[in-house]
Amino acid sequence: MKVAEPTVERLIQYYRLLMLMKEEGRKVVSSLQMGEMLGIKASQVRKDLSYFGEIGKRGVGYHVNRLCAHIENILASPRVWHVALAGVGNLGTALMGHTAFQSYKFSVEALFDIDPEKVGRKVMGVECFHSDDIARVMEERNIEVLLLAVPAAAAQACVDKAVASPTLKGILAFTPATVVVPERILFYRVDIFVELEKLLFFLKEQEKQH
Amino acid sequence: MKVAEPTVERLIQYYRLLMLMKEEGRKVVSSLQMGEMLGIKASQVRKDLSYFGEIGKRGVGYHVNRLCAHIENILASPRVWHVALAGVGNLGTALMGHTAFQSYKFSVEALFDIDPEKVGRKVMGVECFHSDDIARVMEERNIEVLLLAVPAAAAQACVDKAVASPTLKGILAFTPATVVVPERILFYRVDIFVELEKLLFFLKEQEKQH
Repeated sequence: MKVAEPTVERLIQYYRLLMLMKEEGRKVVSSLQMGEMLGIKASQVRKDLSYFGEIGKRGVGYHVNRLCAHIENILASPRVWHVALAGVGNLGTALMGHTAFQSYKFSVEALFDIDPEKVGRKVMGVECFHSDDIARVMEERNIEVLLLAVPAAAAQACVDKAVASPTLKGILAFTPATVVVPERILFYRVDIFVELEKLLFFLKEQEKQH
Repeated sequence: MKVAEPTVERLIQYYRLLMLMKEEGRKVVSSLQMGEMLGIKASQVRKDLSYFGEIGKRGVGYHVNRLCAHIENILASPRVWHVALAGVGNLGTALMGHTAFQSYKFSVEALFDIDPEKVGRKVMGVECFHSDDIARVMEERNIEVLLLAVPAAAAQACVDKAVASPTLKGILAFTPATVVVPERILFYRVDIFVELEKLLFFLKEQEKQH
């Protein structure tokens, strides 16, 4: 089953909403309610969920617990991924503290930086190596995912070194820099620029209407 | 002209790519090349651009400078937006240093935190106030956009205080917390969780194929 990227994105949003509802002790939810909370059409919610084999009960909706477990199963990784973080500045430090990274799905196996204050020490419980050693350390520790939080000007050089490790499979970048990555490497970006420009665009549109 | 959100997102991506090409001194680009670099179909690129009145020349493509100026004009804000940052921890500090925020499009007018080390001082050249004063300060300084970088547990309380200022129009959140916002306020989120889960999902899919 080949799933398109926007569908995966919506699935992740359903999952997060359902986890929250579970915490709040909610039992059932309708496609209309889910859609309203996420800004997605109810018909799209029903279509997505039925594609993955979940049909809501007319007039009742979906069982929160069951639907949550079902989506978790689709999204779940069969194993723990070994992750490294390049760039232990403010951004990298913030990332390490982010709830998204306190997940059973991965284990942060190494940090990389060029700051002599950090290299050779443990930072937040994880060993920090010099960025020059990134390929060797990643290969030794079987690291498959690189979180890229280095300054924009250092991004391409860091990626070029990291891709020399045959264990690397995916990069999640937090830098606005455009970087070239070999085709075999999955590359995603958390994009502050796009969200910010989008907000400004719609603020402008809203203002035009008044 | 009402433009859909995914179209705006693509437009921003074209814009960033074109700015980069301009820097590199590139003169022309085809829809195929733009599409390949951004992972968007060439037919979609042509459709988007012709919607905004730009038709590429067959066998030549688009003039980089002209297309870039044209999109900039569509995206551009007619004025500078007054912005505030709530949460001057690692994440907030990283954001202030991000190139996206060194833009002529906004001016950071105030910071908010609860740390006595920061409140009452200037941090990175901007005055930091106590989060309890957020509504008053935002109204006094006519602040329209709030960047939310407080810890997840503090997000809703911070938003509740901020929306009491009648000047607030939009929030860009960097927290994974779900927050409830009045309908009149535009709300966008830079979502680490979604990008990370997406990367893991496609890594899993890739692994299944081998």
